[in-house]
Amino acid sequence: MKLEMICTGEEVLAGQIVDTNAAWFANTMMDQGIECQRRVTVGDRLEDLISVFRERSLEADIILVNGGLGPTSDDLSTEAMALAKGETLVENSIWRQRLEDWFARSGRVMAESNLKQALLPESAIMIDNPVGTACGFAVKFNRAWLFFTPGVPFEFKQMVHEQFIPFVKQRFDVSGDVALRKYLTLGQGESSLADTLDKIELPEGMTIGYRSSMPHIEIKLFARGIGAIDQLDTIETQIRLLLGNAIVADNKMSLAEEIHALLVDSDLSLSVAESCTGGMIVSQLISFSGSSSYLHQGLVTYCNESKVKVLGVKPETLDVHGAVSIATVEEMAKGARAILDSDFGLATSGIAGPTGGTDNKPVGTVAIALATKEGVYSQMIKLPRRSRDLVRSLSTAVAFDMLRRELLGQAVIVDYGSIGRFEK
Amino acid sequence: MKLEMICTGEEVLAGQIVDTNAAWFANTMMDQGIECQRRVTVGDRLEDLISVFRERSLEADIILVNGGLGPTSDDLSTEAMALAKGETLVENSIWRQRLEDWFARSGRVMAESNLKQALLPESAIMIDNPVGTACGFAVKFNRAWLFFTPGVPFEFKQMVHEQFIPFVKQRFDVSGDVALRKYLTLGQGESSLADTLDKIELPEGMTIGYRSSMPHIEIKLFARGIGAIDQLDTIETQIRLLLGNAIVADNKMSLAEEIHALLVDSDLSLSVAESCTGGMIVSQLISFSGSSSYLHQGLVTYCNESKVKVLGVKPETLDVHGAVSIATVEEMAKGARAILDSDFGLATSGIAGPTGGTDNKPVGTVAIALATKEGVYSQMIKLPRRSRDLVRSLSTAVAFDMLRRELLGQAVIVDYGSIGRFEK
Repeated sequence: MKLEMICTGEEVLAGQIVDTNAAWFANTMMDQGIECQRRVTVGDRLEDLISVFRERSLEADIILVNGGLGPTSDDLSTEAMALAKGETLVENSIWRQRLEDWFARSGRVMAESNLKQALLPESAIMIDNPVGTACGFAVKFNRAWLFFTPGVPFEFKQMVHEQFIPFVKQRFDVSGDVALRKYLTLGQGESSLADTLDKIELPEGMTIGYRSSMPHIEIKLFARGIGAIDQLDTIETQIRLLLGNAIVADNKMSLAEEIHALLVDSDLSLSVAESCTGGMIVSQLISFSGSSSYLHQGLVTYCNESKVKVLGVKPETLDVHGAVSIATVEEMAKGARAILDSDFGLATSGIAGPTGGTDNKPVGTVAIALATKEGVYSQMIKLPRRSRDLVRSLSTAVAFDMLRRELLGQAVIVDYGSIGRFEK
Repeated sequence: MKLEMICTGEEVLAGQIVDTNAAWFANTMMDQGIECQRRVTVGDRLEDLISVFRERSLEADIILVNGGLGPTSDDLSTEAMALAKGETLVENSIWRQRLEDWFARSGRVMAESNLKQALLPESAIMIDNPVGTACGFAVKFNRAWLFFTPGVPFEFKQMVHEQFIPFVKQRFDVSGDVALRKYLTLGQGESSLADTLDKIELPEGMTIGYRSSMPHIEIKLFARGIGAIDQLDTIETQIRLLLGNAIVADNKMSLAEEIHALLVDSDLSLSVAESCTGGMIVSQLISFSGSSSYLHQGLVTYCNESKVKVLGVKPETLDVHGAVSIATVEEMAKGARAILDSDFGLATSGIAGPTGGTDNKPVGTVAIALATKEGVYSQMIKLPRRSRDLVRSLSTAVAFDMLRRELLGQAVIVDYGSIGRFEK
C-alpha cells in the first residue's frame, strides 16, 4: 500500500506558514506502521492542483490531500478534483443542512461564501467534520483514493484519527509488525553520535535514525518484523552503554516533558530564577496542564537590580563576581528557592549573545545552579559559536537535566561530550 | 523561469522534524520576486530520489535540493544524482583539502565517513560552504539545473543567500516588479476578514492572501507590475478603514517584535508579572537581542503565595476576588512595576485550561492589566473554546497590544471583533 500526501495552499508553498500538519501526519501514520512515501506541496493555482491530482493518482494507492476546502476564492481543492476527474460539483444536502445548523446554533449569520463548502464532486463520499465548516471527502480516481481534509490543524487532526485511519484500515492490509523507540540526547552532534553507534551490529529489519530537534538530537530505533522487535532490548542496552549521560530521556519530546512527568505527581515544588534563558524554563513547564501543582514561580530577573530586590542576591556578589558567575547564580537559586521554601530552586545566568561577551566570559558562558533544601549544585558551561536561541535552549536543557538527575538520585553535574565547562 | 524545491530526508518526510527550511526558502525567494511553484518531499530511499530527480528535471528550470549531503549512510542525494544522470562519483580535491583543513583547525579527528562529502557527480560544479563540512553542488540535467544544499539550517541559509540567488540571477531573467505588504491582525477569523475585505475592488495584478499564525492572522497584500504597485497605498488605506483596531502591526512577524522595536531605543523600562501566560510575554521579548536595555524583569508568579510575597498582592484581594480578577491583576501590574519603579508593569492572570474553570470564570477567562506611573488599565477577556496554548498566546497578544497602544498614545482598551470581555 503506497501512501502519499499532497499539501495545498499558497501560504504553505510560499513559506508563510511552516507546514506542521505534514510533519504531524507522517508521524501519526508512522505510529500506525504506515510510511508516507512522498509529499508534494502545491499552491492555489487550479491547473497545478489538477495536474498533481492526475499525476499522483497514477502512482499511489491512497493520497491524503490537506487544505483548500475553505470558503474563500483561493480554496480550490474541491473544484480541481472535480475537473481532474471530469465531474461536476453537486451540493451535498446533508452538509448544507449541517452548515445551516452550525451557524444557527452559534448565533452567527452564514457568509454567502460558506455555501461553497457543501459542493462536492459527483462521485465523492462525504467525510464528516464535527468541529468545522469544511467537510472532508474521498474520491476514487485512477489507481488511488484521494482523501480530502481541511487545513485547520485541529480539524485536520481529528479527521485523520477518526476518519482517515479507519478508512485506510478498512481498505488496505496495513498489519505491519513495527516498533519504534526514541532516545533524547544532549551535548553531542549527529555525526559524532552516528560514528559512535556505527559500532553496533544491527539485526535485519532494524535501523537507527537521527533527528535534530535543537538543542537535542533524537535517536530513533526502528524495528520492522518480529525478529527485529525481539532484539530491541539487546540493542538498546548497547546504545545506553555507548552513550552514557548523553541520553537524557526516553520517548519524550523534550526534557521539560520529562521534568513535568517526574514532578506532577510528586509532593515536590520548584521555583525558578532565570536570566539569560529568559522565561524559557518556566514557559516550557507551564505549557503542560497541571504544572501549577509543583511550580511555585519563575522569576526572570533580567537586570541586576531585580536580582538584588527580588531574589536577595548581594550587591557585593554582583560587584565582585559579576552577574554571570557561580557565586551569583548560586545566590539566585538559593534566593528563588527560599521565597516560598520550595523544594528546589533552579537558576541560570549567562551571556546569550550576540553581544555582551568579554575575553574572560565570552558569548555562550552560562552559569547554572540547582538549590535544594540541603545545599546547592552549580557549574559554568561554555557554549561558544551558538546562536542566541541555541545558547538559551541548551542552557535550559542542561538546567533541566541537573534537576532530572537530582530527582532520580543521580550525580547532578556530569559531562555531556561537546559541552565544555569552566574550572571552579 | 520555473523554480521548484525537493526536500529530502526520512526525518522530514516522516515528520520527525518540521521542515522550516522549506518555508524559509520559499519566503526568501518570494522576497526576490521569484515564486517556488512546487515542492516535493521524499525520504532516504535511493530509488525514490532517483525517480524524483528524473521526473522534476523534465518540468522545472531550476530545482533546489535540500538535505542528504551529510556523512552518514542515509545521506544519499549525491549518489542518487549521479545514478540518475548515469555518471560516476569523483573526489573533488579542493573540497577534500578543505575538509582536512577544517578538522585540523578545530583539532578534531576527521571521521572516515566525512570523506564521502568530497565525492561529487562527474559533471557537478562544486558550491562552497564556508560554514560546514558538506559542500553544495550544481548539476545540469535534462531541462533543469539541480542545485544541492545541506540540510543544516544555518549552512543552508547562508548558501542560498551567497550562492544560490546569485546563481539563479546569473542564468535567468528574474526581474519582476513585485511588492508585498503584510498586516498582522488580532481578534478576527480568516473568513470574517475575507468577507470584510471582499468589498475592496482590487486592481489587476494585486491579490490579498491570508495566513494563520496563531494567535494572529496575517494579511498579505501582493502586487505584481508597476500598475498594481502604484495602487498599494490606496488599497492599504481601504484595508485600514475596514479593519480598524484589528490591525496591530505592519510587516512584523509578531507583536513582541513590534514592542521590542518601540522600546529598544527608548528610555522606557518594563516589568512583567505573568500567571497564565507563564513566561510567554517575557520569553518572547528576550528572544530579541538588546531587550535587556528596557526589560527589568518578568515575574511568573504562578501560585498565590508568590503573588503575595513577590508582587505584594494583598491576601484579602485574593480571598475576596480570586486570583483571576481585575482587582488581583491590577495589584500584580502595580506590584511588578513598583519593585524597580519601571515605567510600565504588564500583568496577566487567567485560566488557560483545560481544567480549572468555574461557572463564573470558565476556561479562557483572562484578566490583563497595564500599570503606568500614572495609573492602571485593565480588562478581563473571554477566550472560550480555545486550547491551552491558544489562550496563553492570545492573552499574550492582547497584553502586548495594550502596551503598544499606550506607547503610541492611543486608547489602551479597544474591541477586536471576536474577543469578548467581562463587564467591570
